[in-house]
Amino acid sequence: MAATIKDVARACGVHVSTVSRTFSAPHLVNPATRSRVLAAADDLGYRPNRAARALTTGRTYNMGLIVADIANPFFPPLIKAAQAQARGRDYHVFVADTDEDPRVEEELIRTLTKQVDGVLLCSPRLSNRMIERLAEDVPFVVVNRRIKGMPAVLMNVAQGAKLALDHLAGLGHRKIALVSGPIGSWTSNEMQGVAAETPGLDLVFFGPNQPTETGGLAVAADVAACGATAVLAYNDLVALGLIEGLAAMEIGVPDQISVVGFDDILPGRLNRPKLTTVAMPAVAAGRMAVDLLLQSGGEGATVTLDTALIVRESTGRAQK
Amino acid sequence: MAATIKDVARACGVHVSTVSRTFSAPHLVNPATRSRVLAAADDLGYRPNRAARALTTGRTYNMGLIVADIANPFFPPLIKAAQAQARGRDYHVFVADTDEDPRVEEELIRTLTKQVDGVLLCSPRLSNRMIERLAEDVPFVVVNRRIKGMPAVLMNVAQGAKLALDHLAGLGHRKIALVSGPIGSWTSNEMQGVAAETPGLDLVFFGPNQPTETGGLAVAADVAACGATAVLAYNDLVALGLIEGLAAMEIGVPDQISVVGFDDILPGRLNRPKLTTVAMPAVAAGRMAVDLLLQSGGEGATVTLDTALIVRESTGRAQK
Repeated sequence: MAATIKDVARACGVHVSTVSRTFSAPHLVNPATRSRVLAAADDLGYRPNRAARALTTGRTYNMGLIVADIANPFFPPLIKAAQAQARGRDYHVFVADTDEDPRVEEELIRTLTKQVDGVLLCSPRLSNRMIERLAEDVPFVVVNRRIKGMPAVLMNVAQGAKLALDHLAGLGHRKIALVSGPIGSWTSNEMQGVAAETPGLDLVFFGPNQPTETGGLAVAADVAACGATAVLAYNDLVALGLIEGLAAMEIGVPDQISVVGFDDILPGRLNRPKLTTVAMPAVAAGRMAVDLLLQSGGEGATVTLDTALIVRESTGRAQK
Repeated sequence: MAATIKDVARACGVHVSTVSRTFSAPHLVNPATRSRVLAAADDLGYRPNRAARALTTGRTYNMGLIVADIANPFFPPLIKAAQAQARGRDYHVFVADTDEDPRVEEELIRTLTKQVDGVLLCSPRLSNRMIERLAEDVPFVVVNRRIKGMPAVLMNVAQGAKLALDHLAGLGHRKIALVSGPIGSWTSNEMQGVAAETPGLDLVFFGPNQPTETGGLAVAADVAACGATAVLAYNDLVALGLIEGLAAMEIGVPDQISVVGFDDILPGRLNRPKLTTVAMPAVAAGRMAVDLLLQSGGEGATVTLDTALIVRESTGRAQK
């Protein structure tokens, strides 16, 4: 039978809590007592309170998953897919939300680092340099950011933006508003890059914006005033807020302005008009991020997943 | 200047990882080396990788938050409110999702217990007895469940259900379908209890159902066939799925059937028709749960928060 903490305590004549502390906070135990406890534990073959496998491998069998905003419906399917994948490999996932705040992000990473075997960092707002520094302490897989030498799962935003712009151009739109997201967003940069490279378009940029319904609502008047007949929005929440804002000004979508979102979240599918959007492979990304973390333990591969344009009701022919 | 792990490693001529392991898994380090490392750490006054305050208080300054389904838009506002409240008190929140599975719920609680000072358990699916047993190892606050002697934050579902039923009765509805949620749901029981006690109604019960859009979609045909002119749904997702299902059968809401949801989530506010619903105080509940956990450390208070009926477009006069 395996030795228990009580056996160790009895063997060296100390209280059970002293044995416990010797393993959890050895610097708080008197050095002489500590030596006695550790010697007794070695003799008896005692293993402190973690699963045996965790002890032999030195692993926690937990992973962290950090998202910018858990209330954005884009993240939950990614989180659930990552969880299911992790569970299939005996891992638990702890999720933490940074509230789009880089300082909170850094603090959460530092806290999680001590309790997990690796961290999935989704749509980070920290600088690449800071992420590289933090990655010295724990393996990372980054989702939606390209950082040299760091394993990453990317969604092909550029491809999706190209599909959306071609769709709008095909409907006769020339003047297109690009409503971007927050500062530090890789997705925003990708979208802007593709738009700038697409010939024959007259682009108007709006940003940075909050990546939420409120952000879309706030920019609606400016978009309406700029004379664009179509909008490519940073994400579906921004697109939905924009449509609400345009509706309040009695500007019809798609009759007067066409709107394309990004993500393909539930509210966009239920909205009237149902939202035309670039579907992001959130479920595949969640699974893949877990696999990359567990396979590589932090070494280099980058996986890029395709996106797809879903044409619904919020886009139509440009007004003459 | 405080001694670092590198100072300790240099002082006793071992690798940094050996110093680290001496504190995190001392039984994996050769006893002689271990003694040398601990002695050097004592000499240099080195403190291993936790905040000093955590060492002196024995606290982790983390709390766990367990939800039934992170993809249900009801939970994120609660999670964010709890996080903000916790952050104001120097706590981090780790979120875990049970996928509506009691076995996963138990496993996650057991895993989190070792890494947090307490757990907020939201809409649990475990039995009261099991929750009581698990609460022996870590302080709990339960949200949306009443368990004797355990601190709880309850949303007044009975009050909300009563408001909804009175609203429907006032519109002339007599035959009302009650579309309930999953087995083990306290909310479902509360709703059914109130409905059964309301005089003058002809009730038809449907359940258990998945607490999702899919659950609502699946029950739509049965609801349509039963002859009810109104529906009280377990939550907004079920109500939205039901409305989609009725629309597919060309049954208009509210012209032919009125529908009331529960929660007040974003998709319901964007839906056409906009959903009449009982608003649940998710933000207040998240804050309150954190306060109860930190104030009481597991002792008894129960807080009941009011709900409110929000009449929008999915309810109307009963057809003659």
